[in-house]
Amino acid sequence: MSYFRENIERMVGYVPGEQPIAGERVIKLNTNENPYPPSPKALEILHSLDGEALRRYPDPLATRFRKVVAEVLDVPVDWIIAGNGSDDVLTMILRACVGPDDTVAYAVPTYVLYRTLTQIQAGRCVEVPYGEDYALPADSLAESAAAVTFVASPNSPSGTAYSVEQLDALAGRLDGVLVVDEAYVDFADGDCLDLVRRRENVIVLRTLSKGYSLAGLRLGFGVAQPALLEGLQKVKDSYNVDAVAAAVGAAAFADQYHKNANAEKVKISRAKLQADLTAMDFRVWPSQANFLLTRSPEGDAERIYLGLKAGGIFIRYFNQPGLDDKLRITVGTDEQNAALTGAIKEIR
Amino acid sequence: MSYFRENIERMVGYVPGEQPIAGERVIKLNTNENPYPPSPKALEILHSLDGEALRRYPDPLATRFRKVVAEVLDVPVDWIIAGNGSDDVLTMILRACVGPDDTVAYAVPTYVLYRTLTQIQAGRCVEVPYGEDYALPADSLAESAAAVTFVASPNSPSGTAYSVEQLDALAGRLDGVLVVDEAYVDFADGDCLDLVRRRENVIVLRTLSKGYSLAGLRLGFGVAQPALLEGLQKVKDSYNVDAVAAAVGAAAFADQYHKNANAEKVKISRAKLQADLTAMDFRVWPSQANFLLTRSPEGDAERIYLGLKAGGIFIRYFNQPGLDDKLRITVGTDEQNAALTGAIKEIR
Repeated sequence: MSYFRENIERMVGYVPGEQPIAGERVIKLNTNENPYPPSPKALEILHSLDGEALRRYPDPLATRFRKVVAEVLDVPVDWIIAGNGSDDVLTMILRACVGPDDTVAYAVPTYVLYRTLTQIQAGRCVEVPYGEDYALPADSLAESAAAVTFVASPNSPSGTAYSVEQLDALAGRLDGVLVVDEAYVDFADGDCLDLVRRRENVIVLRTLSKGYSLAGLRLGFGVAQPALLEGLQKVKDSYNVDAVAAAVGAAAFADQYHKNANAEKVKISRAKLQADLTAMDFRVWPSQANFLLTRSPEGDAERIYLGLKAGGIFIRYFNQPGLDDKLRITVGTDEQNAALTGAIKEIR
Repeated sequence: MSYFRENIERMVGYVPGEQPIAGERVIKLNTNENPYPPSPKALEILHSLDGEALRRYPDPLATRFRKVVAEVLDVPVDWIIAGNGSDDVLTMILRACVGPDDTVAYAVPTYVLYRTLTQIQAGRCVEVPYGEDYALPADSLAESAAAVTFVASPNSPSGTAYSVEQLDALAGRLDGVLVVDEAYVDFADGDCLDLVRRRENVIVLRTLSKGYSLAGLRLGFGVAQPALLEGLQKVKDSYNVDAVAAAVGAAAFADQYHKNANAEKVKISRAKLQADLTAMDFRVWPSQANFLLTRSPEGDAERIYLGLKAGGIFIRYFNQPGLDDKLRITVGTDEQNAALTGAIKEIR
């Protein structure tokens, strides 16, 4: 006898990227963290918090944080829902919109959590394969007629971004919700925020984990029209965003200058790393994110991954169809990237 | 047409206790916060965290925090699962164990979130009424044969605690999971942690929100045998506990002296407040928690609640059957409690 639901018994949990053992010195290019520190203004707020901020329950709606976001993005504050990371907003969407046997559609490879969250709801995954160019398979997605359709833009692990026009057209063909997951948007040339003004069935997700260097804080948000957010509020954990994340996150989001300056540095390093890998005959997919998807001329991804790991450099190897010859490398500092390319040369 | 599941459309979301407007001066005795500040050692850790702690993803399992808990409670570390508040662990239990039409049983009145979380899962609530003495209706609960049975001990809003023997007997009669929610245990004379050693179907929940004065931090945990926790891991948000909460919480939990000293102060104030209310002819239920359930001789709970609110004192009034003549008052400092009883005298 089991204490768990059948779908839970069957599923394998999501496995987060490897974490180095505490004290271990590694170059960590496997989970797309920003190599630069968060805004000093955010740290100043962290260090100014007193016991009173911790003693009381936080604002259930993280209003102060949402007001800063509303001002920066020029959307009304009630178009924003805050989450304990954007993963939390993904969870809200699935719990509100997907029941047993309801369909969830997305192109693969993409963020594996979409599958995990669908399985938890006992929903049905429709996984449309991307081609080698990672163009959006809009027809297949639209024909899936899903309760929820996910598009990560920029997508992981490909780094591909999709245009407002493409996603607007897709949203118009869907009866269900279109989730545009913009976790990596701070490193892209454009964004799709404008879609939420055009379409009542679109929610755009953002996170402070990447561009704002705050992966440890767990803070993200969704932007959508209030009618869509109303359903998500019902399934939201009452106090999902803690007082520290709300206060520190507000200061970090207000400091757009710091975020943009770091993103520019990452983008310059990305171009250099792409050139260096290309010079080594690697294929590198064009990326709008803070990572590169790459294939060695030998297609020996696992060997390179293991060789680098043995030397203290973590990158991401996905042991799954269509990706087992490729590697995803987070763009680090120029020094880290040089150490990486040097180590690859030694391994080969 | 709706974007949401039918059960979500139908339900009303959980409404957290009222929060004062920022800057408003109130005496807040409505959401069971601890009136004393958290451990200075916890604040020291908060203020020592640097950008590196925020930049990286946190440990998905909050191992450092769990090790401190394991040592203090003398249970193996893999018997502990950490959550973004104990509400998060409640959510994991429901998502892992309860699907559409599965039964969830609990005695009412109790923590309203049990109902909300069941509705989100499209489960079926069996609500067994407590009598006026809030004795555990063990037979009715056992006969409900639920997938998940909740007992809050001490219970809110009654303050009643149940014995290890009572809950052990109940667990033995259940095929499903028994959740013993010990959110308020730090103010009680005993606890039921030993049950997890005796019963594989029991999970005991704890929070740092009350005894440790860290409601703003969102940190709680469950203790159970590893086979039960395995299912919960699958539905856990990947990085549910942020790096700040894990580090600050570990320091706070290690400082048992600080927690116990504050709990003793609260217990002494509770006895005094109970005596003062009784002297005013209020009925006061015996409480093992940091609040008192009380009824005025006139049964005019709403009037007193509104009168106090107008004067800047927040207490909890539940506009629901069986509770509409009663009030729940968080035990504050002696000064706050004296202000409360003084204000009640003026209102009457």
